[in-house]
Amino acid sequence: MPRQITAYSNTLVKRVRSLREKRHRREEGLFLAEGLRILTEAADAGFLPEYVFFTRDGADHPLTKKLVFAVEGAGGEAIETERDILSKLSGKDNPQTVLGVYREWDTSLSAVDRSASNIWIVAQSLRDPGNLGTILRTGDAVGAGGLILVDDCVDPFSVEAVRATMGALFTQKIATARWPEFLSWLRSGPGELIGTSLRAVHDYQEPRYEAPTFILVGNEAQGLPADYEDACDRLVKIPMLGKADSLNAAVATAVMAYEVLNQRRTR
Amino acid sequence: MPRQITAYSNTLVKRVRSLREKRHRREEGLFLAEGLRILTEAADAGFLPEYVFFTRDGADHPLTKKLVFAVEGAGGEAIETERDILSKLSGKDNPQTVLGVYREWDTSLSAVDRSASNIWIVAQSLRDPGNLGTILRTGDAVGAGGLILVDDCVDPFSVEAVRATMGALFTQKIATARWPEFLSWLRSGPGELIGTSLRAVHDYQEPRYEAPTFILVGNEAQGLPADYEDACDRLVKIPMLGKADSLNAAVATAVMAYEVLNQRRTR
Repeated sequence: MPRQITAYSNTLVKRVRSLREKRHRREEGLFLAEGLRILTEAADAGFLPEYVFFTRDGADHPLTKKLVFAVEGAGGEAIETERDILSKLSGKDNPQTVLGVYREWDTSLSAVDRSASNIWIVAQSLRDPGNLGTILRTGDAVGAGGLILVDDCVDPFSVEAVRATMGALFTQKIATARWPEFLSWLRSGPGELIGTSLRAVHDYQEPRYEAPTFILVGNEAQGLPADYEDACDRLVKIPMLGKADSLNAAVATAVMAYEVLNQRRTR
Repeated sequence: MPRQITAYSNTLVKRVRSLREKRHRREEGLFLAEGLRILTEAADAGFLPEYVFFTRDGADHPLTKKLVFAVEGAGGEAIETERDILSKLSGKDNPQTVLGVYREWDTSLSAVDRSASNIWIVAQSLRDPGNLGTILRTGDAVGAGGLILVDDCVDPFSVEAVRATMGALFTQKIATARWPEFLSWLRSGPGELIGTSLRAVHDYQEPRYEAPTFILVGNEAQGLPADYEDACDRLVKIPMLGKADSLNAAVATAVMAYEVLNQRRTR
């Protein structure tokens, strides 16, 4: 039976609200996801929140009822609250009617089974939560196994990143690592590391990519460091006919990822 | 000779600052672009600001000097100011050292020469300035002629959109139109209108696209209205193997645009 919380000063409200800050997420091992659609996709992928907050309006939706039932059945807590409080929790004037508090999971490389897919995406120092979300959605679409975040990337559990993934956070594997750690893990098994670079000689449609393919994308402003490029098995370039010298990082990733997929699929 | 402005209360400072609001941009016919790199790309493309603001720090850069010289030579005004004032003008705590105030140009369809390129991008009710910028950068990269904004799109002259284009605003043609107006313009000359849709039967790599190709992308949340899809010469689908039911709008545009480019280029 859902309990009701209507006071801003409630301890749980304060605690959940603090999860908008990375420091508190790390301390608690929890993060926020908003919206019935994302929470339902998470549940379909096997992830239930420890707490689910919903408004009276939201409570009438059959998917909310299903979610509340599942959360309570799994030992979690369902909390009916007010729109103002949801707004306070999510930091948005116009909040979703449902919000979940999830336990963060193991993002170490050792938890990644590379044989689970023949495409993996690797991002280095990716800073923008929107790009992270877009790349995860693209990974989902091309059937990638997941996203490996190398060096100082935006926190994939930040509210903005979770929002931008539109649920793909729960269907794609996420790992975080420093570059040397990633490289030694990569070389401990099969896999071709492909970097896109303006310095590359070969067009991205020239090679036949070997599975599993690891597509490496660099920081939005700087691109890949030269020694990271040197460590790639292949460097390829995406043609650019115009005045600009770079594509958006998520766009470059998608163009590469669809090339790899297109080489392997039958239409 | 640049004049100096150091007071927040200066009339020009107030006027320029007001350009962050759409209403004032329309009234004045002016918009803001920030950063030496974008302003230099604009100048290379033939666009000089009516006013260029720069800090003493920024003034030492040879490209700033060149820009100031060009602006003054063209009858514009160069203004040396302080970092705090640039911050106030751009709305960023950490402003660029140079900011330009440009005259908006004609964005009517009648100013578009479709024979200038064999790829055009058409966006319908695109809401996100980041997506608009990313799509313009992609257009630049694939050698598109420009971007036609249909119905209620984000203002391409907003500070956020201009920032996200990273200069491509000045190299790509921009037009705005309502759907019926666009459709009648389109049908008044050669051109194939291609929509991507989940309802499509044909894979996006199946057709040979005819030039000029108009790639139509829908609103981020809703996609294309059914009757807009019906008006397309071809509807195609980009394969999606995962759980999610859509790609980011800028990603879908890029995947389509590179397919069209790849069909035509020799590697």
